[in-house]
Amino acid sequence: MVSEETLEVPDHLSAAQADFSRAVAFIDGTFVPLSEARIPVRDFGLMYADMTYDVVHTWRGGFFRLEDHLDRFEASCAGLRLAPGLPRNALAALLAELVDRSGLADTLVYFACTRGQAPPGSRDPRTAANRFFAYAQPLVLRGQPDEMRRGLDATISRDIRRIPANSVNPVWKNTHWGDFTRALFLAKDAGFDTTILLDQEGNVAEGPGFNVVAVTREGLLAAEAGVLEGISCRTMMEIAADLGIAGRYGTLAPEILAAADEAFITSTSCGLFPLTRLDGAPIGSGRPGPVTTRLLNTYYRRKNEGWRITPVASLLPNTSRRAS
Amino acid sequence: MVSEETLEVPDHLSAAQADFSRAVAFIDGTFVPLSEARIPVRDFGLMYADMTYDVVHTWRGGFFRLEDHLDRFEASCAGLRLAPGLPRNALAALLAELVDRSGLADTLVYFACTRGQAPPGSRDPRTAANRFFAYAQPLVLRGQPDEMRRGLDATISRDIRRIPANSVNPVWKNTHWGDFTRALFLAKDAGFDTTILLDQEGNVAEGPGFNVVAVTREGLLAAEAGVLEGISCRTMMEIAADLGIAGRYGTLAPEILAAADEAFITSTSCGLFPLTRLDGAPIGSGRPGPVTTRLLNTYYRRKNEGWRITPVASLLPNTSRRAS
Repeated sequence: MVSEETLEVPDHLSAAQADFSRAVAFIDGTFVPLSEARIPVRDFGLMYADMTYDVVHTWRGGFFRLEDHLDRFEASCAGLRLAPGLPRNALAALLAELVDRSGLADTLVYFACTRGQAPPGSRDPRTAANRFFAYAQPLVLRGQPDEMRRGLDATISRDIRRIPANSVNPVWKNTHWGDFTRALFLAKDAGFDTTILLDQEGNVAEGPGFNVVAVTREGLLAAEAGVLEGISCRTMMEIAADLGIAGRYGTLAPEILAAADEAFITSTSCGLFPLTRLDGAPIGSGRPGPVTTRLLNTYYRRKNEGWRITPVASLLPNTSRRAS
Repeated sequence: MVSEETLEVPDHLSAAQADFSRAVAFIDGTFVPLSEARIPVRDFGLMYADMTYDVVHTWRGGFFRLEDHLDRFEASCAGLRLAPGLPRNALAALLAELVDRSGLADTLVYFACTRGQAPPGSRDPRTAANRFFAYAQPLVLRGQPDEMRRGLDATISRDIRRIPANSVNPVWKNTHWGDFTRALFLAKDAGFDTTILLDQEGNVAEGPGFNVVAVTREGLLAAEAGVLEGISCRTMMEIAADLGIAGRYGTLAPEILAAADEAFITSTSCGLFPLTRLDGAPIGSGRPGPVTTRLLNTYYRRKNEGWRITPVASLLPNTSRRAS
């Protein structure tokens, strides 16, 4: 029997250590501290949740899978008929400038396009001037480092179901989180760390900002019904394949998740985060398992080696590139 | 046969005639022109559509059904666990002050409570400081006065269904409009004025910001499945009862709507608006019908007589009451 790896938790990504005063935003054509970035109350992004966004992260000064996030953002904009008004190269350069201005190496970079404001009296979204904004802030782990060592205890939301794809297409990243928020309150009330929502047919969909993956005898099984196509989930599938671990997207019944050997959630803010209990009952050993551990450790090792990393400096115009 | 009434269209409520420069907002404790009212981009109201709102209107200097709108706002806040931080009396006084400061007699008054911002790094909605804001702007008719005379041509959205109540409870007024917005784009593409969404069972739910009412041999039939409890819809039901016209809430199949004698939509911005075509085919005569006409005319007559009107001045603290 091979000795098991130990989960290498990125302790430096705790919120307590982050300097949020460095967060920088770009809005209405100017750079401002994130705390000063504001949007008109009549922007349809606020009034009607009419917007899209994406979140990419930098690791040691380089974007991770930037092209994939830009692809998804462009697809979301096209699907929702939003025009950020920035060609792809300019968008990448702008995100790089935000990171550069923050002076941070490990960041979360949020970028959004809202419908904007229509002329007074108009409710027609076709008449609105779309608005782009973005910001870079310190990368912080979803949850505490100690939570990562023990893993999450999630509850399956029984009363609140994920908004179905024939109402709001989850592939176009959106802010329709009312189901998540409601279910999260109920989960916290009951003492759980988070919540997992089912689709209308009763299969696992997703949780607030994460995909769900079960590790079974057959390998990884990622819930695919009516969910956002998570880039971190894809990353774990690719790493698993390289490690000789099978993986597929498919229907994930909650009973299969409960009976899995291991489980984890995936998100840009953590890569993956172990899911060790479901409604209080242990999943497998009730501790982060060997597959989960290998995937996460490999994920960090690869990022450290520059895998799928685009250096921020390589995207900056020469005139604004800082000495570092 | 009794001679039919003529639809009395409020021509003065066209957007072209409105002075939007008078619109006033209250946000973060101060009054500002609406055009300057902004909220932080990290407010969960924007990030996660985590907010509620309501819209009341004033007519000739008085709020119409203010208590009903305050009741609904309080119920929405309680349901969504939002605390606007204003007792009911103070809220009413604040809305009155907004109208007073605008100098307008006929206004739409929007008031909202967002989840607000959580501490940096937190996604837990329980840690956020809720934010209240409100504004008064000129009351403008949904659509043009001429459109009111001919009525709307709506298309039934076949591909996009209304977000179901087990995902987002429609009774708590919310900004989850992605289904409406998508369906509205498709409707406008096809040359229709607006769209009507069905629920997951295929019955009429609601349209973007309005309830749907059919007028049949049995009287009014308002779609009730998974919809916001519209106050204008209730108003029309009450007026109908007083006129000896039966009315009820129930399941409204699109075929029943198509075969109705008349139909209309209800919304605070218009009271009612005739719906005269469905997917291009006339509903009844294809013109605003006698019941629709009587209801609308009675609605305006009653408001002019002060029915369910609370004078704005009666809610102002004495010190801030203006001479008028």
